[in-house]
Amino acid sequence: MRTFLIILDLAGTFVFALSGATVGVRQRLDLFGVLVLSIAAATAGGIVRDVLIGAIPPAALLDWRYLAVACLAGLITFYRYPLIERLHHPVQMFDAAGLALFAVTGALKALSFGLAPITSILLGMLTGIGGGITRDMLVAQVPVVLRAELYAVAALAGAAVVVIGDRLELPQVPALVFGALLCFGLRFMAIRFGWRLPIAQHRET
Amino acid sequence: MRTFLIILDLAGTFVFALSGATVGVRQRLDLFGVLVLSIAAATAGGIVRDVLIGAIPPAALLDWRYLAVACLAGLITFYRYPLIERLHHPVQMFDAAGLALFAVTGALKALSFGLAPITSILLGMLTGIGGGITRDMLVAQVPVVLRAELYAVAALAGAAVVVIGDRLELPQVPALVFGALLCFGLRFMAIRFGWRLPIAQHRET
Amino acid sequence: MRTFLIILDLAGTFVFALSGATVGVRQRLDLFGVLVLSIAAATAGGIVRDVLIGAIPPAALLDWRYLAVACLAGLITFYRYPLIERLHHPVQMFDAAGLALFAVTGALKALSFGLAPITSILLGMLTGIGGGITRDMLVAQVPVVLRAELYAVAALAGAAVVVIGDRLELPQVPALVFGALLCFGLRFMAIRFGWRLPIAQHRET
Repeated sequence: MRTFLIILDLAGTFVFALSGATVGVRQRLDLFGVLVLSIAAATAGGIVRDVLIGAIPPAALLDWRYLAVACLAGLITFYRYPLIERLHHPVQMFDAAGLALFAVTGALKALSFGLAPITSILLGMLTGIGGGITRDMLVAQVPVVLRAELYAVAALAGAAVVVIGDRLELPQVPALVFGALLCFGLRFMAIRFGWRLPIAQHRET
Repeated sequence: MRTFLIILDLAGTFVFALSGATVGVRQRLDLFGVLVLSIAAATAGGIVRDVLIGAIPPAALLDWRYLAVACLAGLITFYRYPLIERLHHPVQMFDAAGLALFAVTGALKALSFGLAPITSILLGMLTGIGGGITRDMLVAQVPVVLRAELYAVAALAGAAVVVIGDRLELPQVPALVFGALLCFGLRFMAIRFGWRLPIAQHRET
Repeated sequence: MRTFLIILDLAGTFVFALSGATVGVRQRLDLFGVLVLSIAAATAGGIVRDVLIGAIPPAALLDWRYLAVACLAGLITFYRYPLIERLHHPVQMFDAAGLALFAVTGALKALSFGLAPITSILLGMLTGIGGGITRDMLVAQVPVVLRAELYAVAALAGAAVVVIGDRLELPQVPALVFGALLCFGLRFMAIRFGWRLPIAQHRET
């Protein structure tokens, strides 16, 4: 179980780092800038979660594998960018996968630190969206989470599945897998079909 | 007393969330983006304060009422935006009220965690300005705190009143009320009459 | 030794505060905005490090001298800006000195809290680059660390010297001085001769 969680977490780290590196390459940053953006996108969500639940120092700093995986993703993106770019909407897809993986592992970690269900759902969502927000703020853009179709809602749904499953004492692995698939699925469909939440009416000011 | 503090804190949460939601609507964010901005503006200052004084997990995550109040303010703004807009300079007024309420409750919480007077004043100021800074950074704009008339000065004055009152062992409720009114008053007068601090001389570069 | 470290740390605070204040004056912020930017640039890196290693409340809040030094630098810059400006590329030079000082003291503090060597190097780098990132994000610009020549690499090298020196049980003061000089030297040469890391090939999108 522990191993399974770490694998999910490292996979999330990898795909978020790909999204960070892709943004970095597009902004014409140099190699180290691209690596900083990979690491920030991959670890910021988890670091914020760990600080908020009191897991100090954060896992991303204690375990060298997070950093190694993030740098690997950054290097691949940097030296094989045309390959990454050929995938359609690569940032969005990696980002969606990272969102799903971090939302479920984040919620589970919060539960394991004894936090209340509603707080754990929120921390799962925050783990998921924190990396993308940091990535976008670092390049001075409005974070995609604030604009995108069903972004935070998807993370919320994935984290909620894990927490509800825990409350009902369902087996954890299926709950994690289902939560991650639900989150990724919602986000994918939202991108694919342009699902959007409503925008408020207002006069131009 | 405890109840009084929580009421002040929830009121600050409500008005800061209104300011966050108003910025969100103006940036044409969707419903969830508006809610994220409401929550960020309403809770970021308090979360940063709690992390810095070691009150982990932060109150805004432990107590569901903060989140509920922030979401309520976000929903009202989203569905009744023309109402909110009719108020003149709504963001600035809500922001000033939130600043005042958070500056005094933030300073008091820092004191109650045994921090030194000067640190408590700073943490009060930070609690007050943190939400607005986060709100503005999330939409990639220079925070109003850095540009506005007497913004951080007002928060500093309100927090100082509470800390000085505590040192002199004056009754807490009047000190809180006076500190909040002083902060709001300074900010209001600064907006109303365009009070400004000086800007440095420099050649254009 | 303790005194020596505090002097290095206060010197780093001073020069980073100068860089923050210079950015503030150029953005035409008022006096308090300039001070906020001075304080943010000077303390954000150390505060993030302290939060991540669990040194709560952070040194920058507990010890009034950090704040006093940051405000002093802000006031000097504000009232004597033409003097500061006459220095060529003043922001870059102060920034490079602050980077070097914070990278070595940050790494040493992490070691003294019992963190692993690789984590200590990273935290040294983060202490160095955190202030500049915060400064630039506050004025809604892409942080210089992501664009600049050998920026984070220089901080990494300086922090690594300190950590390797500690492992080899070399005397600390020379290791600190050599680490700081290496970091400053790398950064200075990179600015002077335009040393750059490669940028990835990509089609315009």
